[in-house]
Amino acid sequence: MKMGVLGSGMVAQALSARLAELGHDVVIGTRDAEKLRGWQSSNQRVKIASFAQTATHGEMIFNATNGAGSLQALAMAGPENLTGKILVDVSNPLDFSNGFPPSLFVCGTDSLAEQIQRALPYTKVVKTLNTVTARIMVYPQEVANGDHHVFISANDGDAKEQVIDLLRAFGWTNIFDLGDLTTARGTEAYLLLWVRIFGSMNTGMINVKIMK
Amino acid sequence: MKMGVLGSGMVAQALSARLAELGHDVVIGTRDAEKLRGWQSSNQRVKIASFAQTATHGEMIFNATNGAGSLQALAMAGPENLTGKILVDVSNPLDFSNGFPPSLFVCGTDSLAEQIQRALPYTKVVKTLNTVTARIMVYPQEVANGDHHVFISANDGDAKEQVIDLLRAFGWTNIFDLGDLTTARGTEAYLLLWVRIFGSMNTGMINVKIMK
Repeated sequence: MKMGVLGSGMVAQALSARLAELGHDVVIGTRDAEKLRGWQSSNQRVKIASFAQTATHGEMIFNATNGAGSLQALAMAGPENLTGKILVDVSNPLDFSNGFPPSLFVCGTDSLAEQIQRALPYTKVVKTLNTVTARIMVYPQEVANGDHHVFISANDGDAKEQVIDLLRAFGWTNIFDLGDLTTARGTEAYLLLWVRIFGSMNTGMINVKIMK
Repeated sequence: MKMGVLGSGMVAQALSARLAELGHDVVIGTRDAEKLRGWQSSNQRVKIASFAQTATHGEMIFNATNGAGSLQALAMAGPENLTGKILVDVSNPLDFSNGFPPSLFVCGTDSLAEQIQRALPYTKVVKTLNTVTARIMVYPQEVANGDHHVFISANDGDAKEQVIDLLRAFGWTNIFDLGDLTTARGTEAYLLLWVRIFGSMNTGMINVKIMK
């Protein structure tokens, strides 16, 4: 499948490499191609392009840009290039203006996922993977043999099913469907706990399992 | 030990009954004693009193009042009656002004626990148990045989240790020390995810386990 990954950080790199490994036709979109030259030398199946070219290429697009810059990046990608497509939003509304630990620039009454959906009304936004570190997103079995949960939120049922299929291809076996996109308020706010668990354990290679 | 429980809802009732079952001398504090008469008829070891009398009685006091009313309730309890004592804060800053699901009236840059600590500078505030429903607080083994985590946040190490001992008496075996009281920002914000998991599963008899 033609995949577009917006972003040039660790998350974008991890998603792009894994998607290529799974046989997809992947373009990674960045404002600064030079930043990715070194990485690309060991990931030659992934092409580097602009945000707009990446959105145009992808049948499914990932928002792996910094949360604080996501709306601007998606505007640069071009709403018209994302029309009718699935946008998998893995970003978080983290506010690092006061350093670590971050706070959130939207909390409780709205979410970054909903802001993105409002900015792209003809795109099917699916929120997922934002509760784990980049490595676990694409190799979930590296924590507790995969015995932990990823959450998913979306308004479009078919788009959600397609993303669930992709999560399974990544290795996820416990996929918790929280409901519509407003439930992303929960997973985004959870980051405030995640950063504290990270702070205590000094590793991001952790996740939660829902016990009943 | 002399225990005071502030509040008259399900959480206050569950804590009071369990503390009495464990042999403690428990007073439950309320603005409206009539509300608790029926409950007390099957919990006769627990005495009913005012907020101030309850704070005076307790060597350890629980804030199990509604989060939106906690600062006012603690003012009524009397800072002077809480001086030098441990206050176990199990409340959450839930804002139900727009119905269910709630948002938070403080998120990310502060927490209700810190607001309470600032209002009671001579009291040792310990935040815990706020991430689970009342029944699980005091009978954790009723979910997955206790194979899940409770979090604890406090500035005072000795106070934290005393509360950890009490959590063990309740049946908790996995107690995750997040650090100082600012880490309550994480557990309070987690409620936004908790209410969505609750909404999906239609039960509050769930909790998270940290997997690594």
